[in-house]
Amino acid sequence: MRYYVGIDLGGTNIAAGIVNENGELLNNLSVKTNAKRPASEIIDDMAKLCYDVIADMNLSKEDISGVGIGSAGRIHSGVILSAGNLGFINLELEKIFSEKTGFRTAVCNDANAVALAEAKFGAGKGALNLVAVTIGTGIGGGVIIDGKIVEGINGGAGEVGHMIIDPKGNPCHCGNNGCFESHCSATALINSTKKAMENNSDSLLWKYAPTLDDVDGRTVFRAMKDGDESAIQVFEKYTYDFAVALEILVAVLQPDVICIGGGMSKEGATLINPIVEKLKANPFCSSPYSVIEVKAAELGNGAGIIGAAYFCMQKDAI
Amino acid sequence: MRYYVGIDLGGTNIAAGIVNENGELLNNLSVKTNAKRPASEIIDDMAKLCYDVIADMNLSKEDISGVGIGSAGRIHSGVILSAGNLGFINLELEKIFSEKTGFRTAVCNDANAVALAEAKFGAGKGALNLVAVTIGTGIGGGVIIDGKIVEGINGGAGEVGHMIIDPKGNPCHCGNNGCFESHCSATALINSTKKAMENNSDSLLWKYAPTLDDVDGRTVFRAMKDGDESAIQVFEKYTYDFAVALEILVAVLQPDVICIGGGMSKEGATLINPIVEKLKANPFCSSPYSVIEVKAAELGNGAGIIGAAYFCMQKDAI
Repeated sequence: MRYYVGIDLGGTNIAAGIVNENGELLNNLSVKTNAKRPASEIIDDMAKLCYDVIADMNLSKEDISGVGIGSAGRIHSGVILSAGNLGFINLELEKIFSEKTGFRTAVCNDANAVALAEAKFGAGKGALNLVAVTIGTGIGGGVIIDGKIVEGINGGAGEVGHMIIDPKGNPCHCGNNGCFESHCSATALINSTKKAMENNSDSLLWKYAPTLDDVDGRTVFRAMKDGDESAIQVFEKYTYDFAVALEILVAVLQPDVICIGGGMSKEGATLINPIVEKLKANPFCSSPYSVIEVKAAELGNGAGIIGAAYFCMQKDAI
Repeated sequence: MRYYVGIDLGGTNIAAGIVNENGELLNNLSVKTNAKRPASEIIDDMAKLCYDVIADMNLSKEDISGVGIGSAGRIHSGVILSAGNLGFINLELEKIFSEKTGFRTAVCNDANAVALAEAKFGAGKGALNLVAVTIGTGIGGGVIIDGKIVEGINGGAGEVGHMIIDPKGNPCHCGNNGCFESHCSATALINSTKKAMENNSDSLLWKYAPTLDDVDGRTVFRAMKDGDESAIQVFEKYTYDFAVALEILVAVLQPDVICIGGGMSKEGATLINPIVEKLKANPFCSSPYSVIEVKAAELGNGAGIIGAAYFCMQKDAI
């Protein structure tokens, strides 16, 4: 059995673990990133964490076939071209980490790592073509074609959150109007929940969020279960917009699987079934030749680590 | 030098030619398809045409390394799952043609063949990732990732014409509202030109199209050159919508090149520059990391034949 280290480098935490060749995550340690420090310090901490997860499993350096790092930012061929939160520009992380530690190293984007993990070991289970959509504060994503990450020129592929789904839609922080993210992120759902509450003081939404500050991504789901009309309307619009975004992905890529992750995907069928119903009602997608599986992500928080490790594993196989 | 036969099987014509390994189309013959005949008759005619183009170049069967066929329809792994215009369902064309003629045969979708040809020998010239957008009566397309056609599950990938670019937009014949095709095909441009003419009897559009039936895809371009305000407005909206569609493709795939083909691409910079300006003004695409080339297709009508032949060539290389 071969073992890899996967590292998930985010703006808040660095998480790492040992991943075996079956994609099983065997342990999981993390430290604070303390972003905006010099890159060398962050790399030092990543190396230390890497040795820690190896020791934690009573393995030695020689047992490790390679290290995969999934990092925030635009990444192409192992170079972090830019990573806003981390403050990196043109950082040759793959080369630097490999030289520093002696490990074979492979670096990819963190959202792409999640997509790769779900395609290989999670919701896709070997699917060659998969699009991952991760719903959080924003919407991230990753495109897997032929079993491999599509990085795109300059590492920007998979930014599905910034597909325009309605040119007259909600303003997005990127400067556009009507991005998928500005309609369907958890933030967007919270905003439309608040708006519905302001417009209807009798709504049961108020039962689950006594003040507007109490609204979170689950508020709508709770009030819907009580049959609250305002909540149902918010959710109808939300899932309608979501289905438009998925229709676009189907038209362009017809992936085997579209995988929906992030905190909200824990709502499972309550979230996904209405989206799928609307997608299947779409005339273009209702063709018998457009059978796409839309599934909740299966690997949870470890997906980034697993995907990073598998990215390195894949390079071994070539 | 290796030689291949490329065949472009459309609803109206079957065109074929000899293509050498540099992607040069050496001759080009065609016959009527007479669609809706039994598949066997169409296949007989394709085989005959194939022998004709070989003889036309004074080559013999032994000189041919393989035959590539680009056909209308949804095609996956050499099988035509469905092809509306041709009336085929689940036709194993690759197998049948190969058994009939003895040639190594490879079958792909015709729009995908065009994309492949442009990526390898045309506007892309070796680009690994390219999206082709072909503007005609409708909008076709093809997605090339890592130098290869993305067929998608069930052969439906690259249907960029059916990306929804405005959920409240023009009705599309597919049943959706606001498909890229229903806003930016030549048909859509003609329809909005007619509407502008109906709304403005003084427009110079009437100079180039004395009756509404005279309107074609060039009418707007001609009146624009005269500074006609109605034409300019039609074109502004047209290129705005076009840029929205390209923004989506950039967000999802960040391809090296987006290639625009079809009759209207003959307008060249007059068509493409305003689209690129709007795309670059888009906040998400104005990042220095989103440099995408948008180029007119270069291979013209022969692209389908060249791409089909190259599809077969690629299979040889594996």
